[in-house]
Amino acid sequence: MCESLPADPYLAFLDELVTARLLIPSGVRGVYGRGGDFEHVVEQFERLVTREGRPEKAEVMRFPPLLNRAHYAKINHIHNFPDLMGSVDTFTGNEADHRAMIDTFQTGGDWTRSLVPAETMLVPAACYPMFPTATGTLGEAGRTVDLRTFVFRHEPSDDPARMQIFRQREYVRLGTADQALDHRDAWLRRGKALLESLGLPVEAVVANDPFFGRGGRLAKATQREQTLKYELVVPICSTEKPTAVSSTNYHLDYFGKAFDILLPDGSPAHSACIGFGLERIALALFKHHGLSLERWPREIRERLELD
Amino acid sequence: MCESLPADPYLAFLDELVTARLLIPSGVRGVYGRGGDFEHVVEQFERLVTREGRPEKAEVMRFPPLLNRAHYAKINHIHNFPDLMGSVDTFTGNEADHRAMIDTFQTGGDWTRSLVPAETMLVPAACYPMFPTATGTLGEAGRTVDLRTFVFRHEPSDDPARMQIFRQREYVRLGTADQALDHRDAWLRRGKALLESLGLPVEAVVANDPFFGRGGRLAKATQREQTLKYELVVPICSTEKPTAVSSTNYHLDYFGKAFDILLPDGSPAHSACIGFGLERIALALFKHHGLSLERWPREIRERLELD
Repeated sequence: MCESLPADPYLAFLDELVTARLLIPSGVRGVYGRGGDFEHVVEQFERLVTREGRPEKAEVMRFPPLLNRAHYAKINHIHNFPDLMGSVDTFTGNEADHRAMIDTFQTGGDWTRSLVPAETMLVPAACYPMFPTATGTLGEAGRTVDLRTFVFRHEPSDDPARMQIFRQREYVRLGTADQALDHRDAWLRRGKALLESLGLPVEAVVANDPFFGRGGRLAKATQREQTLKYELVVPICSTEKPTAVSSTNYHLDYFGKAFDILLPDGSPAHSACIGFGLERIALALFKHHGLSLERWPREIRERLELD
Repeated sequence: MCESLPADPYLAFLDELVTARLLIPSGVRGVYGRGGDFEHVVEQFERLVTREGRPEKAEVMRFPPLLNRAHYAKINHIHNFPDLMGSVDTFTGNEADHRAMIDTFQTGGDWTRSLVPAETMLVPAACYPMFPTATGTLGEAGRTVDLRTFVFRHEPSDDPARMQIFRQREYVRLGTADQALDHRDAWLRRGKALLESLGLPVEAVVANDPFFGRGGRLAKATQREQTLKYELVVPICSTEKPTAVSSTNYHLDYFGKAFDILLPDGSPAHSACIGFGLERIALALFKHHGLSLERWPREIRERLELD
């Protein structure tokens, strides 16, 4: 191309995606509409995960992107990831309050000062809304749950793979430490194989969550030391800094304790999950196979049943 | 059943849905997880709409549940429906600010006072995020867009059909007044026939939106007088007050003006849409055909390709 390209590889790929109508800009960094071909890839990847991956007897639950604020308060997200949160505020005033808010709005003031916290927060991770529904005592077999939801992370970015709102598909295991770890280990292998079968160069790496501030450094180190989190990474805009398209997390008995999910012996249940970042997987596929679905390799098209 | 039933027909149906694992309570009124059978019905209804309904050359766009706050400010939602809004707030402070917020959190104070408005609002209607992307001059044929998104309306309720967050599937037409009205009229007929083909007793009625306060009375009356809104209603929990499961809206040139969507002659484009309330349609189907998918009439199962 003759025109001057943006030097930034993130902006350059974003430009290509927008030109191809795969992503539709909203004017907010990291918030996009998805075009028909993009959505088709997401849907067909999900069908592949269901077809080949759904563990026997997994319960299907689909949560909307809102989390009970009282449940949010129990999981230390406000301590660990305050900068990523989304709180939902709303207006509950009377007509006089409304007139005052409109006056502030019309004079360019911060009209949101008239709002109050609603009963909900935006969901930070697909499994969070599920745990509070599992309070009680598990059977010997534990439980396996199949989840998908839109999750919110406030980190405005020009990297098309770092969206503020995106979908996670997850398989979560609740049970003993062994049951949780078996799930984690099996899915780390299975997830890697699944992504490789789609022509993506995947690596599994030990990882940590972006705990906030200086106080978060210890949490990051501990998480890595205990190898609680693995990411499956694929180069999208950068080969030096490949992008996590999937991750496994072993939560120890953190959620069992927080929401009184108990093993038959009365001790708190352990949990582990694998999450697929659906938008990132679609982006990786478009990066590696091209922006035009018709030109993708036949074996990839067939595997995803794109036709 | 021998146990005492809730007298309220809404709570009674909600209880049945929860017992059947079709809806999963979150502890917040009007916010539920969806069970596997519920989600299957939603997905298969969407496929039916796509198969039989998608207008030729409709562009597919799928927006996440967030709307650019600057676009929100242009559509008078804050004037007309302030009580339904969802504003997204987030934390952008430093570590000292964080410690202060945590102190407030731990002492039970309103820690959300430490937050600031994010760049987004929750989406109030599926077509709102699309209009700002259509700025410019349309061709003679106008445009038809196929949308689906989660939308938010803060109206906590025990009526399972009045959710705070639910999905709308929409076909929107942008063009001349005639093009918009033709779309509206055709889809009012087609939508009614589609729902009737699923065994639902549907009626089309003139309707209005719930404009806020005393000032909203005139807007309601005008909307009805100009027959801008029709609803397709079906009895779910009440025969006297049937539930709107779908609606058509003719917006005149409201969005054309707000977002500079122009006709070839330079005048603002008109628009109209049909929206299907996916959760309400699923609830109507469960109400009319029973809570167990296996026992639904064979013709309905076949029509929705449930097997």
